[in-house]
Amino acid sequence: MKKRIVIALGGNALGDNLPEQMVAVRTTATAIVDLIQGGHEVVIVHGNGPQVGMINTAFETASKADQHFPVLPMSVCVALSQGYIGYDLQNALRKELDSRCIKKPVATIITQVEVDPNDKAFENPTKPVGGFMSESEALKLKEKGVAVAEDSGRGWRRVVASPLPVRILETETVKAMLAAGHIPIAAGGGGIPVALKADGQYHGMSAVIDKDFASARLAAELEADTLIILTAVEKVAINFGKPDQKWLDTLSISEAEAYIKENQFAKGSMLPKVQAAISFVKSAPSRTALITELKKAKEGIEGKTGTRIV
Amino acid sequence: MKKRIVIALGGNALGDNLPEQMVAVRTTATAIVDLIQGGHEVVIVHGNGPQVGMINTAFETASKADQHFPVLPMSVCVALSQGYIGYDLQNALRKELDSRCIKKPVATIITQVEVDPNDKAFENPTKPVGGFMSESEALKLKEKGVAVAEDSGRGWRRVVASPLPVRILETETVKAMLAAGHIPIAAGGGGIPVALKADGQYHGMSAVIDKDFASARLAAELEADTLIILTAVEKVAINFGKPDQKWLDTLSISEAEAYIKENQFAKGSMLPKVQAAISFVKSAPSRTALITELKKAKEGIEGKTGTRIV
Repeated sequence: MKKRIVIALGGNALGDNLPEQMVAVRTTATAIVDLIQGGHEVVIVHGNGPQVGMINTAFETASKADQHFPVLPMSVCVALSQGYIGYDLQNALRKELDSRCIKKPVATIITQVEVDPNDKAFENPTKPVGGFMSESEALKLKEKGVAVAEDSGRGWRRVVASPLPVRILETETVKAMLAAGHIPIAAGGGGIPVALKADGQYHGMSAVIDKDFASARLAAELEADTLIILTAVEKVAINFGKPDQKWLDTLSISEAEAYIKENQFAKGSMLPKVQAAISFVKSAPSRTALITELKKAKEGIEGKTGTRIV
Repeated sequence: MKKRIVIALGGNALGDNLPEQMVAVRTTATAIVDLIQGGHEVVIVHGNGPQVGMINTAFETASKADQHFPVLPMSVCVALSQGYIGYDLQNALRKELDSRCIKKPVATIITQVEVDPNDKAFENPTKPVGGFMSESEALKLKEKGVAVAEDSGRGWRRVVASPLPVRILETETVKAMLAAGHIPIAAGGGGIPVALKADGQYHGMSAVIDKDFASARLAAELEADTLIILTAVEKVAINFGKPDQKWLDTLSISEAEAYIKENQFAKGSMLPKVQAAISFVKSAPSRTALITELKKAKEGIEGKTGTRIV
C-alpha cells in the first residue's frame, strides 16, 4: 500500500564533515530510493548539527580576524546549512534515481519554521553550537548580544535555544511538489527558526529547532501516514545498556509516556525521538511512527523491524 | 494580459552586506509583488556576488586558522548563498504578500545548473571571488588546486570560471510550483554549477554562472513570455557617457548584435545582460526581454519604460 512518509535523517546519515558527508549521502540515497521504488511518497528532513556548527565557526573566525565581518545570526546559519546539505542530498538522490531509471524530480525547499517567542526555551538557551573559545572571547561575544555558556569544563561556546516548532511556513510548497510526484527535501536542520513580530514580518530567532520535532510537525501538516525517525540503532530499548535491556517492537503512546516518566530514554538522544514520535501519532488517528536505523528503513516500513509507535 | 515572467535581480536589489541586504530586499519585494498583483506569474532569480564572496572569505579565513577546516568548493559556496539569500527574499516577499492579503506561497528551490566541462571558460578562469590575499597565501592555495590570480595590481584573489548554463536541473520543480500558483525563487547566483561525469553523477564545478544567462536559460525552459533583467539604469544606452548618448526603447536582435560588434556595451556589466536578453528572445517566437531598473519593473512590463529586446 502506497504511503506518504516523512523521513527524519539522523546525524549518521550525513557524516560530521565535508568528505564524510559526500560518502554518507550515497548510502542514505540508496535507502531512501528503496522506499520510493516501493511506491511510497517520500519527504526528507535532515539534521545539521556538525554543518551548522562549521558555518557558525567559519563566520566567527572571520569576524575575529576582521571586525567588519558579520557574525551570522543562528537563523541565517541554518539557512546556509539547508543550501549546503540540500544540494548534496538532492544531487546524490538524483544519481540513485537515474541509475534505477526512476523519473522523479527531487529538490530542496528553503524552509522557515515558526516558533513561539514566549517558548520557555528562550529564557535559558542551552544548546551549544560551534567551536570552543576562551572566556574573554566569549564575554566579548556576549556584549554583542550573543548568548554563551561554559560547556562541561571544556571551554566556552555559543549557546542557542531549542524551542518547539509551531508551524512550517512552506508546507504548501512541499504539498505542491508531492502532488506533482516530486521528492521534497524540507525543514533541514529543523527549519530556520522564525517568529512573527509586531511589524507583521517573521524574524529569525537565535535558536536551533530539533529536527525530529520539526519532522513530526511537518508530517502532521502533510497528513502523512508514517513518520520514520532514522538513528544509530535498529530499535528502541528499555533498560538500555543494562543486563535486562529489552528491544521494543511496538510501543503504544501510554507505554511510551510511562517509560519517559521512568527516565528510560536518554535526554538529547532517544528521548526527543520518542517524544516527536508520540506528538505525530497523537496528531490524528491511524498515524504511525517508526524508529529504526538507516539501513533498515525498507524492512522497517514492511513491518519487519524497528520500533513502531502506535 | 497575464504573463509568465522570469525576473533577474541585479546586485543593487540585494545590497553588499547583511544589514544592506535586509533593507534592500524590502524594496525589492515591493517591486516584485506589484507584478504579482498585476496578475502575472513570476519566477525570481537573484545574483550573489558579495554574498558568495563573503561565504568564501569566511571559510578561507577559518581554514587559515585551522588546517583541518575545509576550503569550500565554489559550487558549495553557491549552494550556501542560495540558502542565505533565498531565506531573506522569501521572508520579505511573504511579508509584502501578507500585507496586501495575497495568498500565494513563496519558496526557494536549491538549484543546480549543468555546464559543459569543455566550456572554454574553464581553460582560463577569470572571475575573481572573495577577498584579497598576499602572493604567498595565494600560492599556498594554488598548491591545493585552487585557481588564483593577481587582480589589477590590488593583490591576489581566488578566481573561478564563468561558463554558460546548459540546463537547469530543477526546472520541473519550478514548473510544479507555478502550476500550483506559487512564487518560486530559483537558480540563485546563477545556480550551483555542476557537470555530468563518467560515474553518472553531477559533480560541482569551480565556477560561478552569470545570473543573467542562467535566468535566460530558465526562462526558455519555462517557456516564459518575458525575461526582465533588473539593473541600476532605467534603459540601455549607446554611446554611454558620451555627448551623443542615446537611451533605447526597443532593440531588435540584429540591432543589438550590431551594437555588440561596435563594443557599445561594457564587458561584465551591460554586455552580458544584452547577450542574455538576446539568447532568450531567440529561443522561441514572441518572447520579449526587458532591461530596466528595479523601481521601474511594473511600468516596464506595462510598456511605459525600459529597453525592450524583441
